[in-house]
Amino acid sequence: MERTLKEIAELIEGVVLGNDQITINGIQSLDDACEGEISFLSDNRYRDRIKHTKASALLVSAKIESFKGPQILVSNPSLAHAKIAGLFSMPVPRFPGVSPEASIDKTCRLGRNVSVYPQTYIGPEVTIGNDVVIFPGVSIGAQAKIGDGSILYPQVTIYHACMIGNRVIIHAGTVIGSDGFGFAQDGIKNIKIPQMGIVQIDDDVEIGAHNTIDRAAFGKTWIQRGVKLDNHIHIAHNVTIGEDTIIAAQTGISGSVQIGKQVIIGGKTGTVDHITIGDRAMIGPGSYVYQSVSSGEVVSGIPIMPHRKWLKTLRIMPRLTEHHERLRRLEKKFEILEKNND
Amino acid sequence: MERTLKEIAELIEGVVLGNDQITINGIQSLDDACEGEISFLSDNRYRDRIKHTKASALLVSAKIESFKGPQILVSNPSLAHAKIAGLFSMPVPRFPGVSPEASIDKTCRLGRNVSVYPQTYIGPEVTIGNDVVIFPGVSIGAQAKIGDGSILYPQVTIYHACMIGNRVIIHAGTVIGSDGFGFAQDGIKNIKIPQMGIVQIDDDVEIGAHNTIDRAAFGKTWIQRGVKLDNHIHIAHNVTIGEDTIIAAQTGISGSVQIGKQVIIGGKTGTVDHITIGDRAMIGPGSYVYQSVSSGEVVSGIPIMPHRKWLKTLRIMPRLTEHHERLRRLEKKFEILEKNND
Amino acid sequence: MERTLKEIAELIEGVVLGNDQITINGIQSLDDACEGEISFLSDNRYRDRIKHTKASALLVSAKIESFKGPQILVSNPSLAHAKIAGLFSMPVPRFPGVSPEASIDKTCRLGRNVSVYPQTYIGPEVTIGNDVVIFPGVSIGAQAKIGDGSILYPQVTIYHACMIGNRVIIHAGTVIGSDGFGFAQDGIKNIKIPQMGIVQIDDDVEIGAHNTIDRAAFGKTWIQRGVKLDNHIHIAHNVTIGEDTIIAAQTGISGSVQIGKQVIIGGKTGTVDHITIGDRAMIGPGSYVYQSVSSGEVVSGIPIMPHRKWLKTLRIMPRLTEHHERLRRLEKKFEILEKNND
Repeated sequence: MERTLKEIAELIEGVVLGNDQITINGIQSLDDACEGEISFLSDNRYRDRIKHTKASALLVSAKIESFKGPQILVSNPSLAHAKIAGLFSMPVPRFPGVSPEASIDKTCRLGRNVSVYPQTYIGPEVTIGNDVVIFPGVSIGAQAKIGDGSILYPQVTIYHACMIGNRVIIHAGTVIGSDGFGFAQDGIKNIKIPQMGIVQIDDDVEIGAHNTIDRAAFGKTWIQRGVKLDNHIHIAHNVTIGEDTIIAAQTGISGSVQIGKQVIIGGKTGTVDHITIGDRAMIGPGSYVYQSVSSGEVVSGIPIMPHRKWLKTLRIMPRLTEHHERLRRLEKKFEILEKNND
Repeated sequence: MERTLKEIAELIEGVVLGNDQITINGIQSLDDACEGEISFLSDNRYRDRIKHTKASALLVSAKIESFKGPQILVSNPSLAHAKIAGLFSMPVPRFPGVSPEASIDKTCRLGRNVSVYPQTYIGPEVTIGNDVVIFPGVSIGAQAKIGDGSILYPQVTIYHACMIGNRVIIHAGTVIGSDGFGFAQDGIKNIKIPQMGIVQIDDDVEIGAHNTIDRAAFGKTWIQRGVKLDNHIHIAHNVTIGEDTIIAAQTGISGSVQIGKQVIIGGKTGTVDHITIGDRAMIGPGSYVYQSVSSGEVVSGIPIMPHRKWLKTLRIMPRLTEHHERLRRLEKKFEILEKNND
Repeated sequence: MERTLKEIAELIEGVVLGNDQITINGIQSLDDACEGEISFLSDNRYRDRIKHTKASALLVSAKIESFKGPQILVSNPSLAHAKIAGLFSMPVPRFPGVSPEASIDKTCRLGRNVSVYPQTYIGPEVTIGNDVVIFPGVSIGAQAKIGDGSILYPQVTIYHACMIGNRVIIHAGTVIGSDGFGFAQDGIKNIKIPQMGIVQIDDDVEIGAHNTIDRAAFGKTWIQRGVKLDNHIHIAHNVTIGEDTIIAAQTGISGSVQIGKQVIIGGKTGTVDHITIGDRAMIGPGSYVYQSVSSGEVVSGIPIMPHRKWLKTLRIMPRLTEHHERLRRLEKKFEILEKNND
């Protein structure tokens, strides 16, 4: 596929500096770009690489004097990159139609223009929307519902009765609707509390590989519109995650936690259960969230504290043994002083 | 399904206060219960919700004056909830018999009343007990054994020769019997140490989604009766986990660790290898277990220390930068004092 | 299979003390060895167990006087164990040929002596080398390439266009080539940045169960020759991991991190993105790697610091509340002193 620079600039509402009639056939990083490709500067750390790039054009937020080719000025080069990459990226591979090697229960309703790969299982009374792609090894339990345009990559499991919205992307191996971890103690034995609820995933959610999202004890575990989850994330039963929230890899959210909208949570973070994290809060990586976080708060750490304080605390950590010595020294001096004063 | 309150009370050995002839058709949380359903108060944090509940009856540990309907008095409302939910919960979906789309080696022995979904693989000389349910995508390696009444959810992998007991529940994607992580160094190269043992899972164990339990180098990795594991847990080779122990999500247990009975381990905890954790020990979430823990000990933290001390330490953590300043100030003052004293 | 002790000694370049004509039919741990088996002492912690072992011969690095049977002296008993175990271990179970129940695209090229189990999917234009074993539930996307002698255990997913080298072992459930976690913000919405690169895995890599290795935004995420990864590891887009590096379970490597050769990283470690970890660096378990690490450095901790300093810091952690008290006491005393001096 080829586009003129003018066409590209129109897509991203940018302004071309230089010849807007050159044709572009791809987008690449500064280091790897070839002639005919456009590249971008989204982070000033990479400014040096512009000298050596072979890209034919650049996306920039301010004119780069040292680059001789045409440039497109945009306010947000990352966003422009995302949109242009959409033009040139390989489309998601699609099986042509429904494979005869798929196992599809005859009570299942399939939408139009669906791709179902071989080695898949779709259970009784499942509803599959239009334009859905179901990769090999996917298993969809009874009465589940998959909305229009969603993509389930290989080995995804959707347990019975779970609801997946429109344009949801779920990467390989992710499990939606396994039982929440609930047991009641009967003397020394642990008796399973049946998990009677479901998982509901709303529109435009993207879930990375190897997430587990447990079904609710009652009601639903609920991932709202536009949420983006990285890999290896654990979402316990009855959690709600608000719209457009982003969570990085290997984080675990404990039971019944309520997370607001547009929250950002760093990787490897853990929370206690039954707390609330307010809208637009930010939580740094590796944090231990032992209590609720208010809207707009920026916290980090073990345990969480204001983010700047945690950054300072990290600088103090390697000095704790030194503190220990200094404290002891002061105490000794003081002792001597006290003796002398007697 | 409907039961009278009297029938329910008998099941859970409770005492009915009020009309025991009303019929109950479900159990729900206080917020979501409708007329005809029973609810429960297992945590006093939710006491306020009783005012607004539409439940027709309640499970309580002491009479709630403000609730007008009949109540069942029980000593442990959580346990009663677990048992009643078992009455009303949707049974595990079962494929009717053995799917012709399953791949079952002809040397495999299948018990009575087995459900085998399509898209499953059962290898040579495998033994499957009675009443077992095997969901789509499950793979069971040669010579493995699955006991009566066990449930393997989608995409579970059982490697060759591993032994699964009776009434074991394994959630989607969990891997039993992958090679332990063992390498010997040959100069700069790492030479694989063949992992010649197995994994043995005893009766009544429940394993969440996406656990990995590695086979032993020699002998067995052993999960004993009644153990309950949450999601994303890693159990390394040659670990033993004692009866009725509970481990929360994203915890990792290193090689050859021996864990006793009725231990409780919080989420995101990690251990060093070759240590022992005694019976009934409790280890808080996010802990770094760098040494053995005695029976009955309650520890937490990075590194583990008595749990109460860790709680205090967490309160001190945000004050470390302040300590730093105070220490410096004291030292300066002392210096001046010393000079003046000269 | 049986071998004389002499034959075994020749394989591992060891020296036999005692009768080298006895026959050996297996290798076992000291505790579990039976007559006819050889055992080994790789760790002096287990020296006591030699008294009770029933092994007929031992691998040792120095003669054990208390053991009456023949011994093989070797410089590295662990390595010798690895090599001998290779003689006696059960070979990887292999399906005889290509199962008619596998779904293999007709444009796919299969090498000689390939095992393809039932319930597998191999997509268009995939290349599979000689002697490859593909277990049930594996899904290999379009245009991917698997080198000679590689083993893909059940439920492994290889996304389209990814490249797997020769003699690579990938354990169950691992995902290679899922999209990197990249989004650009468009107001409050997060717009997906198409991930246009691949994952390349070089020869002799072993990857444990449930790893996720994301495809690059551009170019490749690259796991170089001889790398060994444990279970539940997350490798983000555009990471490079150098030859013979070892990473333990549940570690996460953030985007664009460059890791050198022969690095050792402990379990549950996390890193920030875009840093460099030099050749032969060692990073302890549970670390927070917030900045680059130089070649040969040995670091640990939250945050990373020299390993010995972290060990001391761990000893100080349980004393922080005591420090707090001691500091306060000193301040009070000082206050009184100052008053008296006035």
